[in-house]
This record gives sequence, structure tokens and C-alpha cells, in this order.
Amino acid sequence: MPSFDFAGLINPRSIAIVGASGEVDGHAGRTLANLVRTGYRGEIFPVNPRHRELSGYRCYESVDQLPAQIDVAYLMLRAETAVQHVEQCAAHGIRTIVVCASGFAELGAEGRRIQETVRDVARRYGSRVLGPNCIGVMNVADNVIACPTFNITSDFLPGTMSIVSQSGGMGVNIANIAQSKGIGVRVLVSVGNECDLELADMMDALIEDPATGSVVLVVEQVRDGARFVAAAKHARSAGKPILALKLGRTSVGQRSALSHTGAMAGDYPVLQGIFRQLGVVEADSVDDLVTTANLLATAPPVAGNRLAVLSPSGGECTYMADRASEAGLDLPDLSPQTKDVLGPLMPLGHPGNPLDPTGAVIGNSDLLRAALAALDADPAFDMIAFAIPTWADFEAQRLLPLFIEAAQASRKPAVISAWTAGPMTAKAEHLLRASGTLCFSSADGAVRALTALHQYWSAPENSPGVATSPGPEPGRLTGTSEFQVKQFLAGQGIAVARETLSPTRDEAAAVARTMSWPLVAKLQCAGVVHKTELGLVRTSVHDEAQLQATLTEFDRLAREHGLATEGYLLAEQYSGLEIIVGGFRHQDFGPVVMVGAGGVWTERLADRSFRLCPLSPGEARRAVGELRISRVLAGGRGRTFDVDALAALVARVSDVMARYAWIAELDLNPVIVGAAGAVAVDAALVTGP
Amino acid sequence: MPSFDFAGLINPRSIAIVGASGEVDGHAGRTLANLVRTGYRGEIFPVNPRHRELSGYRCYESVDQLPAQIDVAYLMLRAETAVQHVEQCAAHGIRTIVVCASGFAELGAEGRRIQETVRDVARRYGSRVLGPNCIGVMNVADNVIACPTFNITSDFLPGTMSIVSQSGGMGVNIANIAQSKGIGVRVLVSVGNECDLELADMMDALIEDPATGSVVLVVEQVRDGARFVAAAKHARSAGKPILALKLGRTSVGQRSALSHTGAMAGDYPVLQGIFRQLGVVEADSVDDLVTTANLLATAPPVAGNRLAVLSPSGGECTYMADRASEAGLDLPDLSPQTKDVLGPLMPLGHPGNPLDPTGAVIGNSDLLRAALAALDADPAFDMIAFAIPTWADFEAQRLLPLFIEAAQASRKPAVISAWTAGPMTAKAEHLLRASGTLCFSSADGAVRALTALHQYWSAPENSPGVATSPGPEPGRLTGTSEFQVKQFLAGQGIAVARETLSPTRDEAAAVARTMSWPLVAKLQCAGVVHKTELGLVRTSVHDEAQLQATLTEFDRLAREHGLATEGYLLAEQYSGLEIIVGGFRHQDFGPVVMVGAGGVWTERLADRSFRLCPLSPGEARRAVGELRISRVLAGGRGRTFDVDALAALVARVSDVMARYAWIAELDLNPVIVGAAGAVAVDAALVTGP
Repeated sequence: MPSFDFAGLINPRSIAIVGASGEVDGHAGRTLANLVRTGYRGEIFPVNPRHRELSGYRCYESVDQLPAQIDVAYLMLRAETAVQHVEQCAAHGIRTIVVCASGFAELGAEGRRIQETVRDVARRYGSRVLGPNCIGVMNVADNVIACPTFNITSDFLPGTMSIVSQSGGMGVNIANIAQSKGIGVRVLVSVGNECDLELADMMDALIEDPATGSVVLVVEQVRDGARFVAAAKHARSAGKPILALKLGRTSVGQRSALSHTGAMAGDYPVLQGIFRQLGVVEADSVDDLVTTANLLATAPPVAGNRLAVLSPSGGECTYMADRASEAGLDLPDLSPQTKDVLGPLMPLGHPGNPLDPTGAVIGNSDLLRAALAALDADPAFDMIAFAIPTWADFEAQRLLPLFIEAAQASRKPAVISAWTAGPMTAKAEHLLRASGTLCFSSADGAVRALTALHQYWSAPENSPGVATSPGPEPGRLTGTSEFQVKQFLAGQGIAVARETLSPTRDEAAAVARTMSWPLVAKLQCAGVVHKTELGLVRTSVHDEAQLQATLTEFDRLAREHGLATEGYLLAEQYSGLEIIVGGFRHQDFGPVVMVGAGGVWTERLADRSFRLCPLSPGEARRAVGELRISRVLAGGRGRTFDVDALAALVARVSDVMARYAWIAELDLNPVIVGAAGAVAVDAALVTGP
Repeated sequence: MPSFDFAGLINPRSIAIVGASGEVDGHAGRTLANLVRTGYRGEIFPVNPRHRELSGYRCYESVDQLPAQIDVAYLMLRAETAVQHVEQCAAHGIRTIVVCASGFAELGAEGRRIQETVRDVARRYGSRVLGPNCIGVMNVADNVIACPTFNITSDFLPGTMSIVSQSGGMGVNIANIAQSKGIGVRVLVSVGNECDLELADMMDALIEDPATGSVVLVVEQVRDGARFVAAAKHARSAGKPILALKLGRTSVGQRSALSHTGAMAGDYPVLQGIFRQLGVVEADSVDDLVTTANLLATAPPVAGNRLAVLSPSGGECTYMADRASEAGLDLPDLSPQTKDVLGPLMPLGHPGNPLDPTGAVIGNSDLLRAALAALDADPAFDMIAFAIPTWADFEAQRLLPLFIEAAQASRKPAVISAWTAGPMTAKAEHLLRASGTLCFSSADGAVRALTALHQYWSAPENSPGVATSPGPEPGRLTGTSEFQVKQFLAGQGIAVARETLSPTRDEAAAVARTMSWPLVAKLQCAGVVHKTELGLVRTSVHDEAQLQATLTEFDRLAREHGLATEGYLLAEQYSGLEIIVGGFRHQDFGPVVMVGAGGVWTERLADRSFRLCPLSPGEARRAVGELRISRVLAGGRGRTFDVDALAALVARVSDVMARYAWIAELDLNPVIVGAAGAVAVDAALVTGP
């Protein structure tokens, strides 16, 4: 594959615009119009046989008449002619070709075939393609505004946030919203249908780009999982935060994403788990994406989740404390020293966290100064938030400089949340913007960003883990009966129920006498995976008479359903909490392990976490900790559950999935987690090609 | 109690300002300064012995020197002198007195005593008190800006949203934020510590106020539950939406609310259930509160939750569809007729919902016009959302008028969500503002408001229900053993486990022979409520030998723990899903019923819904429907659960709680919900005074 000239794409010395037009109102005319309007400093070469000149630039009749050594070509022409024009550009030595037209894979199989041809043709000449169905590049920092869009600002604020988007429209949206919040943008790259260059290419390049502080992704589908994982690891080791907004989280949204850029929107919960595992911060909304990316790019690391809140409005204190507490941040009380300092200064209240020095601070800047300094010095806190009501000029001028000074002097991440109210709060907004302080326009947004900051810094560095399973690799299982699967799993170090398969009823009865009652009886039949639905599982069999009755009933059912009995399975009965553990192969990411609530909750609650395989027991514990049922697993009322054993089992399952490519799916349902140990009492396995 | 002169409070012809000051920078000077600055048209009477004149107004030495017939007095003086000044005002015939000072119940018992004296003194003279610890009234519609705050706009937009806030600061915040969003405000009333006039007084008055379209509440605590319920019912019957933002949802937030206005922040989940039951719409954030209140006050009623989404940006389509789907809105496909109309018009896509006519609409207003009209005409939808990316002047001028025209012409609620990006989108914002179209600055906010609109119109009109339980009222139970409680409940029409209490082991064995195995055995002992923890409950007893062994073990445990055995309880064993149903008396609201997930999930998941007693089976079903476990109750994989029986049982329990005041707490845990019926298999009852 030809190498990718990132500098030539985002900061080209020369741009050819194939299909350029002078109609500034139309799509085809926009790239030229935007470059001209924003004062692009490189060379521009319009190509269009119908013009001699466009906007003062000589217009070329065809690509082959262009001078040599052009860095990038923007193709503004229809999909039908894309192959032909890409070939002309590539043959002319243009190493990067941006195909802006839509009408490719997003419309179906024929479009997909065309875009694959486009890629193959380009590569044959040593060139790479961005798109199709994309809007190219808007490089704010270097002033290369090449995207053919109308809705961009004319007043750019360069910064360190870089954006890579599979949706051009949403990418521009995010860039515009960031700009309007005073958050500078480094570059926006729209990757569109990704027939060639894709997310991971841009991630890798931007991680190495010294001007980029954080990378924001708008993702419909991760097409190459392995490269994405590698790029995310690259980002972690470089200390550069990656944030993601997933489009197509629901089946309804996917319906739209499908027709939009031809991406098969992946299974969202799986992607969520992978993001967490990789330390990719997921944002829930466009606004959060932008503000959180800015916080993560600029705030110092945090060691914990302990937040101090200060507001001169009691209502604000309560409001922010509610949201922080609900988000899982901790609001410990002030240290005794802090209370000793502040107590005598507060006539109308008691010092606490949240700290409400009341409106008294308006006439008493000493109190405010003392409060701000005390929170910074107090070792009880990792982060500080100053929550400010809507302030008009008077308060803004009198109080805001003190808040700004405190936020800037703080050695901890310190943010200001300041409600905005149009022209009324213009002074406050101006002071905040001019200071460059980390500022949020709502307490809600500030809390969500601080929570993400904590999550980013508390994510482990070493995941996905490395397979650690010892021992020789066994061959492919020839049969996948429950008993065979469990024998195989036991050989892999996974605890399974103690059980015996007996070919006859007499042997089963003899085995039962060596076990303790009650026990579990199952009828194993060829090809039957879901025994319970057929009545072939009986728990709490408490004596030999009941066992005989059960086996008689099994035989009757086997006859009724025409099943080929393989034997009677008698197993020890375990008590504890039912958990499901499974594994499968994701089309984009390969082997994935799942852990979730079992029993009646399994399907209805969809309380599940996913991770890439293999993973460490520590990462498995994090996955378990994301479940709602983890609150039950935490124990209480005299019950305890061996979460360590569960995490170890999940890690072992992930190793098995990673090691044995012939396993397509694995399902341990349930795993019984007791006070000591976690045991798979049922298991099913599907082999793949 | 003296009657409350609402007009005199919010639209007074004359205002006395006791403790007025000329220092416009100080709190005491602010009410006068704000009235003067905003051109209040009534009479102003400052009172302060240290001045002869303030801002051109004659300043009175004391209250008794004021002329007669002053509508309202604002007290700007310290808490220590409040009783004295309130008495002077009341004795002078001022019927409404606003006490702005803080330092009352929010500081503790002594402050609470003072504010109670304030109230009693005022009432003795026929006057009423607003506050203390409040900022009074800002009546935008009639231009009475009397609140002593700095942070208010100087450019007011009158409207129909009225705000009642227990937090003055948050109330002003909300008013300011509404104004900046172009949402007009009718009046803000800050009720502070509510020593006399309170939430329900303002709700009732505003429901009758023709200028008020919707009422927004900022609530720390509902002090008089019965009056709140009555006011909420009043609002429903008047068709005036009530929206609430609860401050102090978490224990951390309550910590702050407590010191803030002296309100014991109530139990949030209980209040949530009551809001839902009463049709009070709860907002999660300040921004949502404001935009949702505006939508509910202006949009026509909706019959269902079926949303059509249209955006010229595919990314926006997906984004909004994801959020709508996750919020529980339905996005059905377009009707065949709509597809027939739009299909031929769309060269680059297929018509669907969300509907993405692509950027092609920029040059093709016919397509956009057809799409907008088709959605309005399509009977598949109850609501329409037009989601618009950040638009600069060119697109705004070309496309926005068509969207605005469609939204305004629609017979269904039709909203526009338009991302804003500061000056860049100024033209779009201007067009939207000027049109008065319902507009949201994010797709997220639009979806949340539309969801609330649907919830508001789908809330039943008749709740809380009326007690329907027939039959004579039995006397207070003399004993509250499990058996006695269940006998009592059975007499109230609540299904309980079939069971017998036997005083001796021989009788128990005889009873067992008349029952079918397996059964449940319990040892009933005086004063023991939690039998399970002591090992006094044994399920799945499958034969007489096991029964005897169990009873022997019970006897041993009774001796070991020194328990007084009352008898052996043998009960039929039921299978199904474990649910908990309970009742208690809330300090502010009286009898409350609770339904939630039982078993291991009960405490850890806190999956519970609350309702006021009594309630109808229909409302009980809504409460059950709010539970996460309702997804399990919905059945599947051959399992069904009798949710109707559960709802009927919850309604019966609510009747019992409403009818028998001597029951302090009732706990049916678990109730087993099977394929047919819901049966309480354990029950406990605590009697009250």
C-alpha cells in the first residue's frame, strides 16, 4: 500500500480542484470560494474545460495539463466519473485525492464496487484517496479551508482540538460549535465512506502532530478494528486523549446511518466496552464532546474523583452537588483545617462541601479569596468547580477576576461553570474568554466533563491485555455437547460444575449415590443446545426416587421430541448469583468477551459489558463493575460473592477466545458466583470455519 | 388564616421599602434601584430614618408615618429586627410583607422560631408574609421588578412562563436563561423559607392567572403535601402545565439545601413518583426546564409518541434518531403514500424516517417543500422535528424560511432544533426568534422536551384515585405476627399465601399431609420480623422427613436465640418473579405506596416506584411500568407474568394505607407474581400512634 502523505493532505502547498466552478452558491464552487475567501497561501489550480479562468486563477482544461508536484486534488464531480478522474490525478502524480461526491457505498452494492475501484486505481499509481462522500479538510491552524461547505465561520480560532468525522455535516457542526465556545480547532478531516484512508490513519497522524492536543472522533462504524485498537494504544502511550461520539447507537439511528454513508453501524454496547477498555472517552452529546475534549487537552492529570464545589448561590451549590454525586464523583467534606480557616469568616452559614459563602462575598472579596485559596490547598480534593449563576456586569467585574485568578493558580484541575444569558452576561463571557480559563456554560456540562477527566486518568494503561494462557493448544473439538464443552473449558482453567455423563440410567443412579443431594440432572441429546426449554434440566433433585422419576420423564421427552440421547448428566448443585459470560467474533474487532446479569434478567435488562480479547483480570473486574448487577455482587446482608473469581473466569474465557480461532461463539450461562468461586454450570460452543 | 392578596403581591399599586438605601451597590439598595431603573409605574415609599430622600422619592422615618393603603412592603433589614418591622407593617394595614433577609430557619432552630413568630404576628393583623430568605417578585409582564438582585437583565421580554422558586438565586437564573433564549417570562416569585405563603399558594394563584401559560417550580421541599396535590390537580383540570426542577436530589445535594434555605430535602424517588402521578413534568436540568415549559405552554396536544425527523444532514438525522429512540419515542417508517410522493424527488437517497433529503435541498426548494408538507400530512406521526446543522447566512436565508413556514403551518407539534455557533449563526437565530417558532439549540434538548410533551398529554387525569375498598373497617390489629398480618390483608382483598399456623409439631405434620409438596416452613416467634436472617424460613420442603428435620432445626434455633415460639407456619410454595410492595407515611404527603424489584435486587438496585395513596389499578400499572424489572414482567421465552394482578394488589395495598391510619408501615416482601395471580408470601406491618 502506498504511504500516506498527511502533510500533503492537511497542509498542501498546492491544491488542484477538479470540476471547479465559479458559482459560489453551488457545491462545486465552494472549495475554490472558501480557499479564496480565507486567504489560502498555497497555489490553487482549478480544472474545468468550460472555463479559462476562475476567481483570477488560470483554469486548466484537464488534469494532464496541470503542472507537476501538486500535493492534493479535490474532485468536485459526479460519482459516475470518479474512477476516470481519480486515475487521471493519480497518473499525474498527485499523491492524495479527495473525492467529495456522494452516490457510492451509501446507495448500495454498485456504489460500493465503484469506490473500491477508485481505491484500487489510485493505489496502483502510488496515490491515496480520502472519501468518497466527504468534505475533505479544514485546517484552521494553517489556514487551509478546503472543504466545499457553506456553513463555516469566517472568523477562525486556531487551537489544539482535531476532529476526524465519518459524517461531514456533523464534523463541521462540531468545529463550528467549538469555535463559538471559544475553543480553538487545529484541523477537521472528513473521512466519509473511507474507501481507502480511514479513522485510524488520521488518528495515527494526529497523535504524531505536535499541534494536536486532543482528537475528537465522530464514528458511525470502525471498519478496521485492529488498526483502531493500535491507534488508540498509540494515543494512550503518547498521552493524547481520544474522544468519540458514536452515531447510530440505536437501530433507528442505524437505519439512517446506513443510508447516510454506507456504514454498517456496529453493535453499540460492544463498541462502548471497547472504548472503555482502550481509554477512549465517549461523549453523549455534541456539546459534551467539544467541552470535554478541551478539558482533557488542557487540564493536569487527576489522581482521584474528589470534587470541591463552591458557589455564591446556595441553589447552584445544591444543583451541582446533585449532578456530581449522581455522576459518581465524590464530594467529601472540607478538611478540619479548611473549616477552621473559613468558619470565622462566614457569618451566615457553615463551611462545607459544597461551599456556599452566600451573597455576602459580593461585598467581601477577602472571604471569597480565602475560600478559593482554602479549596486549592485542601488535600481532600482532586478537582475544583466554581459554579456561578447568571452574572450581569456588576458582579462579573467585581467577582469574576477572583474566580479566574483562583482557577488559573490552582494546581488541581479547576473549572468555572457560568450560566450564560445572552447579552446580559456578555461581560462575564468576555472576561472568561479573555482569560482562557476552562469554562462551561452549565453546571451539568462541567460535571460531565470532570467525570470524563477522572475516567480518562483512571483508565488502566495496559489493556487490552496479552494472552497468558499456558499449556499446549488442543485441536478443534469434534463434538460440542455440553459435557464435551465443559471438559474442554476445564482443561483451559475455567471452573465448571463437577459432573458425570452416564450412558445408562443404572450408571447414573450409581453415580448419584457417590454425590451429595440435591443435585442437578440433565439429559444430553445430540444437537440440543437449549435444554431448559425442552424440560431436559431438573434442579434440586433431592433423592434417588426423585432422580428415577426425573430420568423417566427425560426418556419420555426424548421419545416425544425424537431426540438422540447421549447420556444422563448429573452435576453438583451450586448456589449464588447467576451471571452470563460469553464470547463471539466481532466482524470488525475480532474476539470479544461479554459478562452480564444472568437468569431472568439476561435478555430483558441487557445488563452487559463487552471487552476485546484477551484482557487482564483487572480489566475484567472493570467490565463487571460497569454492570448494574455489580451492586448486588458487592454483597451485603451477610451475603458475599467472589468477584475476583468471576473476573478471573472472564479473563480465562477471553484468553480462550483469543487463542482458539475455531471457536465462533462461547456461552457460559449461567456462571454461578458464590461466596468462594465462580463456576460455569452450563456451557455451549459454536465452532466456526 | 387571612386571605392572600396575589394581585397586591405581584402587581402592587404601591410598594413600601423598609430599610431602603441609596447605595445601589448594596443588597439593601437594590429593590429601589431596580424599580427606578425599570420604570415602575406605581408609587414607591422608602422607609429609613437616616434619609429624607432617596432617588427623588420622599423617604419616611418609620412605617407608621407612611400613608394608608400600601399594597406590599419589602423588608430589607436584618433578621434580628424582622418581628418588630413585620408587626409595624401589618399594624399599618399592609397586607403583604416580603421579608428578604436571610438568617432564619436555614441557620437552625432559633431562626425557625423567629420566622414562625413573624408569620404569627402578621396573621394576627390580617397580613401575609412572603419569605424570609427570599428575593420577592419580578413581574415582567406588568413591569414590577422589585427583587433586590444585581443579576437581572435590563431588557425584559414578557411572556407566559411563570416561575416559583424556593431558591432565589436559581429562580433568577432560570428567568435570565429563559429571557436569553427568547422565551418570555410572566412573573418570578421567590418564596424562600415559606414561613407563611408557599408553593401551593403561588401555584393556585398562577393557575387562575390568565397571563400565565405554564408554571415552573424550583423545589427543595414540598412542605404541605396535601395542598401541593390539590394545586397540581387544579392545574391539570385547568389545562395548565406544571414543571418542576428538584434541588437536593442526592444526599450530597441535600446537605447543601439544608444549610441553604432550611428545607429538609425530601426523599427524591418518592417525590418523583408523586410528580408522575400528578402529571407534574420533571425537568432534569435548568435548560430543559425552560425550553420544556415553553413547549408545553404553546404546543397543541399530542395523541401519541410517534416522531418524524427531517434533516438535510445525514449525521443530524442519525444523531436525533438515536436520542429520540433512547428516550422512548417511536420513529415509525413513512407511510407508503409519503414514500410514493418523495421517492421520485430524491435522486441521492431513499425516503425514510428519519428523512434525509441530503444537501440537494440547498438548490432545490421544491424537494424541501414537498418533504415538509408530506410529513405534516402523514398520519403515521404525532410530532415533527426539523434538525438543522449550524447554518451560516447563506443557508439560513435560503432554507430556514421554508422550515419555519412548515413548522408554523403544521397541525402537529413541530419544532426546529438548530445548533447555534455564536455570531456565525446569528442570521439563523434571528430568523427563528423573529418567527416565534418553537426552537431548540440542540437536538438533545428538542428530544427531551418532545418526550415531556408526550408524557404530559399521556398522563391520566384521574390520579391520585379515590379509595374504593368496600366493607367494614376493622379495628387496630392487636398483634402483628406474619400470620396475623396476612390474615388481615386477606380480609382486605389482598392475595396471600395459603398457609396454616400450627401450635405444635404434631399439628404441623397433620396439616402438611393435607398440602402438596414441596411447601414452605417458617417458625413464627414473637417480635421476630426478619425470619430469614435467623434461619427460620425453609423453602422447598419436599417430604415429611425433611419437614421433621426442619422443625427440629427451628426448635434448636429458637432455643439458641431465646425466642418465644408462636407456632409453625406451613405455606404453599409459589413460583414466579419476586416483587416488593410496601407502604409508609411520608412526613409531608401522608400515605405512600411503593412497588419494586424483590429478591436480591431489592436493596442494591433500588428499582422502585412510589405513589400517593390511594391509587387506581391503572396508575399502579404505570408505577410498575417505570421499573426496570417491568421488562422482565413483560414476559418472553414462554414465561408470562400476571401484571394486572400485581397492579390490582398494589392498588389494594394503597387503599389499605389510605383507610387505616393506624398502619405506619406495611411490607409485602416478596410478592410472587406468577402466570396467573400475584401473592404476598411474606408480610410485615408496623403500627403507629
